[in-house]
Amino acid sequence: MAGNSFGELFRVTTWGESHGGAVGAVVDGCPSRLELTEQLIQRDLDRRKPGQSDITTARDEHDQVHILSGVFEGKTLGTPISLLVWNEDARSDDYLGFKDMYRPGHADYTYEQKYGIRNWQGGGRASARETIGRVAAGAVARLVLASQTKIEIVTYVRSVGDIEADIDSAKVTPRLLESNIVRCPDAKAAKKMESLIRKAKSEGDSIGGVVECIIRHVPVGLGEPVFDKLSADLAQACMSIPATKGFEIGEGFAASRMRGSEHNDPFVMKRGAVRTVTNHAGGILGGISSGEDIILRVAFKPASTIEQEQKTVSTAGKNTTMKARGRHDPCVVPRAVAVVEAMVAITLADHLLRNMTQNF
Amino acid sequence: MAGNSFGELFRVTTWGESHGGAVGAVVDGCPSRLELTEQLIQRDLDRRKPGQSDITTARDEHDQVHILSGVFEGKTLGTPISLLVWNEDARSDDYLGFKDMYRPGHADYTYEQKYGIRNWQGGGRASARETIGRVAAGAVARLVLASQTKIEIVTYVRSVGDIEADIDSAKVTPRLLESNIVRCPDAKAAKKMESLIRKAKSEGDSIGGVVECIIRHVPVGLGEPVFDKLSADLAQACMSIPATKGFEIGEGFAASRMRGSEHNDPFVMKRGAVRTVTNHAGGILGGISSGEDIILRVAFKPASTIEQEQKTVSTAGKNTTMKARGRHDPCVVPRAVAVVEAMVAITLADHLLRNMTQNF
Amino acid sequence: MAGNSFGELFRVTTWGESHGGAVGAVVDGCPSRLELTEQLIQRDLDRRKPGQSDITTARDEHDQVHILSGVFEGKTLGTPISLLVWNEDARSDDYLGFKDMYRPGHADYTYEQKYGIRNWQGGGRASARETIGRVAAGAVARLVLASQTKIEIVTYVRSVGDIEADIDSAKVTPRLLESNIVRCPDAKAAKKMESLIRKAKSEGDSIGGVVECIIRHVPVGLGEPVFDKLSADLAQACMSIPATKGFEIGEGFAASRMRGSEHNDPFVMKRGAVRTVTNHAGGILGGISSGEDIILRVAFKPASTIEQEQKTVSTAGKNTTMKARGRHDPCVVPRAVAVVEAMVAITLADHLLRNMTQNF
Amino acid sequence: MAGNSFGELFRVTTWGESHGGAVGAVVDGCPSRLELTEQLIQRDLDRRKPGQSDITTARDEHDQVHILSGVFEGKTLGTPISLLVWNEDARSDDYLGFKDMYRPGHADYTYEQKYGIRNWQGGGRASARETIGRVAAGAVARLVLASQTKIEIVTYVRSVGDIEADIDSAKVTPRLLESNIVRCPDAKAAKKMESLIRKAKSEGDSIGGVVECIIRHVPVGLGEPVFDKLSADLAQACMSIPATKGFEIGEGFAASRMRGSEHNDPFVMKRGAVRTVTNHAGGILGGISSGEDIILRVAFKPASTIEQEQKTVSTAGKNTTMKARGRHDPCVVPRAVAVVEAMVAITLADHLLRNMTQNF
Repeated sequence: MAGNSFGELFRVTTWGESHGGAVGAVVDGCPSRLELTEQLIQRDLDRRKPGQSDITTARDEHDQVHILSGVFEGKTLGTPISLLVWNEDARSDDYLGFKDMYRPGHADYTYEQKYGIRNWQGGGRASARETIGRVAAGAVARLVLASQTKIEIVTYVRSVGDIEADIDSAKVTPRLLESNIVRCPDAKAAKKMESLIRKAKSEGDSIGGVVECIIRHVPVGLGEPVFDKLSADLAQACMSIPATKGFEIGEGFAASRMRGSEHNDPFVMKRGAVRTVTNHAGGILGGISSGEDIILRVAFKPASTIEQEQKTVSTAGKNTTMKARGRHDPCVVPRAVAVVEAMVAITLADHLLRNMTQNF
Repeated sequence: MAGNSFGELFRVTTWGESHGGAVGAVVDGCPSRLELTEQLIQRDLDRRKPGQSDITTARDEHDQVHILSGVFEGKTLGTPISLLVWNEDARSDDYLGFKDMYRPGHADYTYEQKYGIRNWQGGGRASARETIGRVAAGAVARLVLASQTKIEIVTYVRSVGDIEADIDSAKVTPRLLESNIVRCPDAKAAKKMESLIRKAKSEGDSIGGVVECIIRHVPVGLGEPVFDKLSADLAQACMSIPATKGFEIGEGFAASRMRGSEHNDPFVMKRGAVRTVTNHAGGILGGISSGEDIILRVAFKPASTIEQEQKTVSTAGKNTTMKARGRHDPCVVPRAVAVVEAMVAITLADHLLRNMTQNF
Repeated sequence: MAGNSFGELFRVTTWGESHGGAVGAVVDGCPSRLELTEQLIQRDLDRRKPGQSDITTARDEHDQVHILSGVFEGKTLGTPISLLVWNEDARSDDYLGFKDMYRPGHADYTYEQKYGIRNWQGGGRASARETIGRVAAGAVARLVLASQTKIEIVTYVRSVGDIEADIDSAKVTPRLLESNIVRCPDAKAAKKMESLIRKAKSEGDSIGGVVECIIRHVPVGLGEPVFDKLSADLAQACMSIPATKGFEIGEGFAASRMRGSEHNDPFVMKRGAVRTVTNHAGGILGGISSGEDIILRVAFKPASTIEQEQKTVSTAGKNTTMKARGRHDPCVVPRAVAVVEAMVAITLADHLLRNMTQNF
Repeated sequence: MAGNSFGELFRVTTWGESHGGAVGAVVDGCPSRLELTEQLIQRDLDRRKPGQSDITTARDEHDQVHILSGVFEGKTLGTPISLLVWNEDARSDDYLGFKDMYRPGHADYTYEQKYGIRNWQGGGRASARETIGRVAAGAVARLVLASQTKIEIVTYVRSVGDIEADIDSAKVTPRLLESNIVRCPDAKAAKKMESLIRKAKSEGDSIGGVVECIIRHVPVGLGEPVFDKLSADLAQACMSIPATKGFEIGEGFAASRMRGSEHNDPFVMKRGAVRTVTNHAGGILGGISSGEDIILRVAFKPASTIEQEQKTVSTAGKNTTMKARGRHDPCVVPRAVAVVEAMVAITLADHLLRNMTQNF
């Protein structure tokens, strides 16, 4: 109810502040007898960890995951899987100066108003470190998907600032997008994005971007048709990631400018299967997966921490100014790719389980 | 779990197919002693009902609500409020021709695959009639909000096809937007939208649009900061409405093209209160309401039912063609305004109650 | 959250006060393609309805159920099933005298304190009429069980006051227990129970009793092993029935007086299956069904409405006396049998669905 | 859904097997700004830990709790509280002999059937070590109760085997019951219970018992009146504790033998407050707390681990015999007192929060 859990049957609860003991997640509802190792989870965590390149934050965190329960002799037990990553390299002094003021764009003010208290060290619970638990749980979710389906989730950077990649989504492979530090499968655009991010950084500024995700080989029938439409749950999943401001599926906002005769995807028989000629819908009809590729996009705002002087107010209610020090990402999308992918995997794993009970 | 409920503390469950006995909702968790009448609910239902003008469907449904429980001598009891609207004017014969084929853009195929059965009369559960329960429950939600806050929700049509309204959202009033049948507060654009909708209709086609919603006088502190961010729950709420393809809050996708120095809203003291100079964030920081106006937009695809011939396949797996008859909306946004507003109200009422227990 | 729903995957929400429009239930999560008719549900409702014999209340309510959604051409759609029973024969005048006082043993006082308002007509939401929705939903639950298992639930009166039946639970059949109006399979004890109930009634008094339930042919593996043990969920299910004061499973309280060497049920191979020699555990080990018969008992207090003068206080806070008029049950257990059976069926159906997703 | 969480607004999720990394709990929904330390939690854990006396198991576990999140500078943040206790002293070799057979009375067989895999070391998830998370969370729950109410929960041993204490529940104090190792406030009975437990132990056997709990100074209005009656939720809470077989509240099963004229508690004005003359109901009317003391009892079976030879079957399906070695409790009730108290506290804290939103 306090909103630290996601999913109904595959249920992920994250916990932890950025500075303090640790961060982690409890995954409840994972089916038994799946082969789960710390290495498998670590692979995903390494994609989100800081310090991967000069365009991400310079914080040096190893983010090593520990499985504390739910796995026995390399296999899931069907019991809750407790995942933990210790907090290290926590220079809380970097934040001492902001203890008594509200950083613009951050959640300092709203947390303090809501709870009457706030952990001012590194954003506390609002820190992006919270997403470590999501990414770790996402690795477990992908294991569930792999055990029952051929689902492939490919997530990449679609745009940074005004630079938009030219991408044939059908051809994007996981390898392709990992070929550059921006995680954009269009190599030419990736170069420009890199430059733009470096430029923003050198100016003490930050820049936004869009992450795109394509999900292939989705079984027909995932999604609950009213409030828990697959599209609606993916929207919540993605919009729960820090710094997100928009979500679209299929044609998204462009669909609002289209005619029905143009947007409707005609059905056609292909090799004995019901398919659609086009895929404007983005793989979901009436909230339920149709078997076509699901395509979605998530808009991220520019990171709130910038090294320019900004106007703000103190906790005592005085107008003042501030200027951030410390280590931070000038653009969050290269690392956010791993978080979007995790949230998509968790949502799909949950709906896969939910779908099992509805049609004997 | 089957996804027919929304909200945690203010919990709405809708039920009903388009043809069959009735449609309705059960509202659980409404606080006691609020003055609730059928008239209050009817006012909202009348904004969503068919047959309001020549640009909406010609179906003649009165959609009269009945309160069956939860209210005693005009006041809520704290017990579940059962709301019912009988189905009438159900010409299921209109749909007989589509019994054995999958209408493009509709959920016929995905329902049949998911459940192994489908009510082919008027879309069954996937019909927009399902939203009657939402709108009725939304009226109760607004009562909850009104009893504790000064929250004002104003919802209107932002664009139809390529025609975008020129709107100063700060000045939109409920009266203003009801001054035309499109429900767009820019009278000039509204005229053009009307023409465009009539043109699409005359061509047997449909057209999409965008609904915008501004929420004023929101108390600081609504929203749970991780998975149930106010923004994330609003995203799910809106993306659960039939025909939606995109959602954004504040600057939305435009934020992805901005610099941090541009997007960050500086805090400033105004008449003793902490406020922001600008409102790019759209009233939410870290998933929690900041007290600034919340602004969100929802993209609707063009209605799937069109009177042009379309390619499709039969339930027997043969390629075929179809052409819709019957009565339908060439553009859903003028009526969808009421549904978006209801879902926003329900989400806010739920978070208002959730927020009561977190800071003694 | 307001507690009007039960079950996670097979989810029942009841609504309705005793006087007012109607009472009903929404069943969400029922799998599709099960054959469901109003007659099937009516059969169960008739076992619970008033006026069945001279030892139950003389109220004449037909309690005819209406299916308003979720069923199409005789089969479930996988969508919510809305069930409704109109309130009739509501002599609210019978209750006028109690509008301004708190009836001892009833929930008048606690409702008024909790909600600041109360429907004083016939107990409002606290009326046993609320259980109509449970019994109707229970019929749907049994349909789910029958479609996947051979589970047989037999529920009967174990004792009334001091009179305890001598029963070989292995031999009780549904027919046997319906052979008398008390619903006790021991015909001799049933006669005595009838007399005792009539005696209490003639003295303007009421009497308590115990309902026992045996569940046969339960698949191994139902129940979630920590908080949602099958035994714990059955306890909640049964203790949520009005007038219940105790619950036990297997040996129950008698187990507290036993030695481990006596209580442990040795495992043994029987016809190739793992079984136990004895069944002191009552069919559940570690919260999970073992395949042996589940046996449980529920204690009901004497009905609170009696026709003797009782001391009480008025809503204005004055000491006073009252004496009930009206029609009421001197002993609730003969009708409660149907409610216990419904709650057991709902709990099992829910756990059957939950168990489907845990071991691929 | 997999049943490792309890509570709606004050939500406790436990995780961990008896052998393996650790056991713990995540407490979500705890209000902010409460003073919470590891010492406060440790005090409760020490009451449940093994090795307290010669009538409990000789295992030497320190069970030191670590708070990993949710607390900042000694105060709760309103974010999830992660609690961890490392597993130590795990002699999994003690269990090697039982790897290939099902111990009678234990959950070995049902886990293996449900999940297709089982952690055979010390009972895995079915071990009583799981209750460490409950007791730790219970300490947090009591903090919530103390911050808003004067609720006092006193829990003690009512009976062991046939020996029943003679107790005036109104006079039991926490100090009184801690005066002996059985935790029974009747010193004379306690001596006999001690002897009986030692006798059972010396015979390689175990013995059951009953735990009683009295809750004082409960505010009126806690409990949701239909499925989540306070009595029903307490029943689930208590029956989810390992080894429980029965639950009763107020007169419990004895109420089934009473007349209404005897059981009904007359209301009376006492010092300006509405009270009852007697308290047969045990403090709950219609599922809602009445302000009178809540009294409940929980029946525990004799511990399943005994040092006598028992018949059983092997995992390969052969009849065989077994005899337990290792360290175990001959009677669980002296330590179970802490677990019952924790579950009661969690249930009350949850309902306290739930009640805040229902009557403005």
